[in-house]
Amino acid sequence: MIRPLVPRLAIIGAGLIGSSLARAAREKHLAGTIVVADADATVCARVRELGFANEVTQSAAEAAKDADIVIACVPVGASGAVAAEVGPHLKPGAILSDVGSVKASVLEAMAPFVPAHAHLVPAHPVAGTEFSGPDAGFATLFENRWCIVTPPEGADPAAVDRVVALWRAAGANVETMSAQHHDLVLAITSHVPHLIAYNIVGTAAELEETLTSEVIKFSAGGFRDFTRIASSDPTMWRDVFLSNREAVLEMLGRFTEDLTALQRAIRYGDGDALFEHFTRTRAIRRSIIEQGQETAAPDFGRRAAEKPKHEQS
Amino acid sequence: MIRPLVPRLAIIGAGLIGSSLARAAREKHLAGTIVVADADATVCARVRELGFANEVTQSAAEAAKDADIVIACVPVGASGAVAAEVGPHLKPGAILSDVGSVKASVLEAMAPFVPAHAHLVPAHPVAGTEFSGPDAGFATLFENRWCIVTPPEGADPAAVDRVVALWRAAGANVETMSAQHHDLVLAITSHVPHLIAYNIVGTAAELEETLTSEVIKFSAGGFRDFTRIASSDPTMWRDVFLSNREAVLEMLGRFTEDLTALQRAIRYGDGDALFEHFTRTRAIRRSIIEQGQETAAPDFGRRAAEKPKHEQS
Repeated sequence: MIRPLVPRLAIIGAGLIGSSLARAAREKHLAGTIVVADADATVCARVRELGFANEVTQSAAEAAKDADIVIACVPVGASGAVAAEVGPHLKPGAILSDVGSVKASVLEAMAPFVPAHAHLVPAHPVAGTEFSGPDAGFATLFENRWCIVTPPEGADPAAVDRVVALWRAAGANVETMSAQHHDLVLAITSHVPHLIAYNIVGTAAELEETLTSEVIKFSAGGFRDFTRIASSDPTMWRDVFLSNREAVLEMLGRFTEDLTALQRAIRYGDGDALFEHFTRTRAIRRSIIEQGQETAAPDFGRRAAEKPKHEQS
Repeated sequence: MIRPLVPRLAIIGAGLIGSSLARAAREKHLAGTIVVADADATVCARVRELGFANEVTQSAAEAAKDADIVIACVPVGASGAVAAEVGPHLKPGAILSDVGSVKASVLEAMAPFVPAHAHLVPAHPVAGTEFSGPDAGFATLFENRWCIVTPPEGADPAAVDRVVALWRAAGANVETMSAQHHDLVLAITSHVPHLIAYNIVGTAAELEETLTSEVIKFSAGGFRDFTRIASSDPTMWRDVFLSNREAVLEMLGRFTEDLTALQRAIRYGDGDALFEHFTRTRAIRRSIIEQGQETAAPDFGRRAAEKPKHEQS
């Protein structure tokens, strides 16, 4: 028998990401023992039914005991509390990590609770769906997706390597960068897109009542694609915006300036400016498809009866 | 043999919509003869190869001769020119229609060229993909999608019924409303969503070069969904914004006000306001799924090798 990558893996929080990581670890035999902790008793019961963990507990502290790697899979606003709870129970050489979409504030919140004999190596798998909870996860969520690891200055290289190895084994491509740079990149690739999707759906919801019902009816013209993004977990996203304020406001400022320029082109009938802008944006999509981060399949005319991916795993 | 719905159907413009309509008409035997006209000789040659038309010509006037229904499938900025060309050739009782995403300006542009013995009945199938050209079309594009018919005041009821019947037979659900109301509804369901998608992709393209390449790399966090919309046909969309200026500026104004409020909530750390907003938007998506305009399948973790829909038809 081959020695597993992680003898004892503790996952704190059994939402979309935590339950997907547990499923991937189980399916790919990445851990000797998979312990899943969730503060919610109902979630724990469901995790037992789903059967992707060897041990299930409501206590993060208990899960962390003797674990080699502990991964906080909670909204970023809760990562400090998780660190406070598990910190005193980390064994010598243990690694504490997370999966949060913001890294600088998470590092700041978790670091004070990590004892000198353990390691803190935050990470962020850039993957997800608009669903939440233990039923939403699936083992292939991370495949060919990026996972960004953001080791603090002076982090133990061996500990960083173990976190990188775990995510690679789960199917992800891994890149390391500073927490600050991560937060700037994610502000434009993820946080601001979510904010404007939430925003336009909110604008539509506040129209006159008859108009809102027509918006729903005729949503196939573009709007429905925003509603998908705007149905992501509200707690997670509240925390993201509160935790990555500076970078989000910076990128939102650029977005608004550019939108004002487009608005002006519409008001004054500047067709050339509009055409030039709409042509330039095509190259970016081509690059994304070339890099395998998206398929070229047209998506507006969706198939009527597509099987939810999480039912396949 | 059953008499076809339209003895002679002329489609002017063999792009995504025109070629899809021709394919649907052919597959469902909706027309005795399908004539496709396109000003571009290369497009005509390709239409002949693809074989979904009985006759192919570069002359819209020639296509319109003896046609019972003539449908302009061109960017809205070109609909007036098409009407000017085909108008003198419309036979008594013939119907001129279109598929443009803006209706008030199209009505205004086309109406002067329609002789008293013919009928003008504009329509807008709310369906599409981000691809363009005769190869992009497929016969099932309109199935279970809406088609909005906007008859001018005093339009002949029998002519309206024929246009409605054609779109129903092509698979669409049909609703009639005024051109002005259509333009307001589409401004928020389609035009503003496209504008902000084009805008955020443009903002990303103008970042420092290394940052732009990272945006492409880590686009799975939400950004890539916007690039899909932002790769739609630039000419079509330039014309949409120039033609539906008032309604777009009105809805864009509401969008910007709401975004400013969210931005303020982020700046001052108002988590409750953010959470409340992010929760409210979920109900809209539920309604869209309930009404069959979208599937509930999670889409962020896309399948690696999805077959383009237009290869299935």
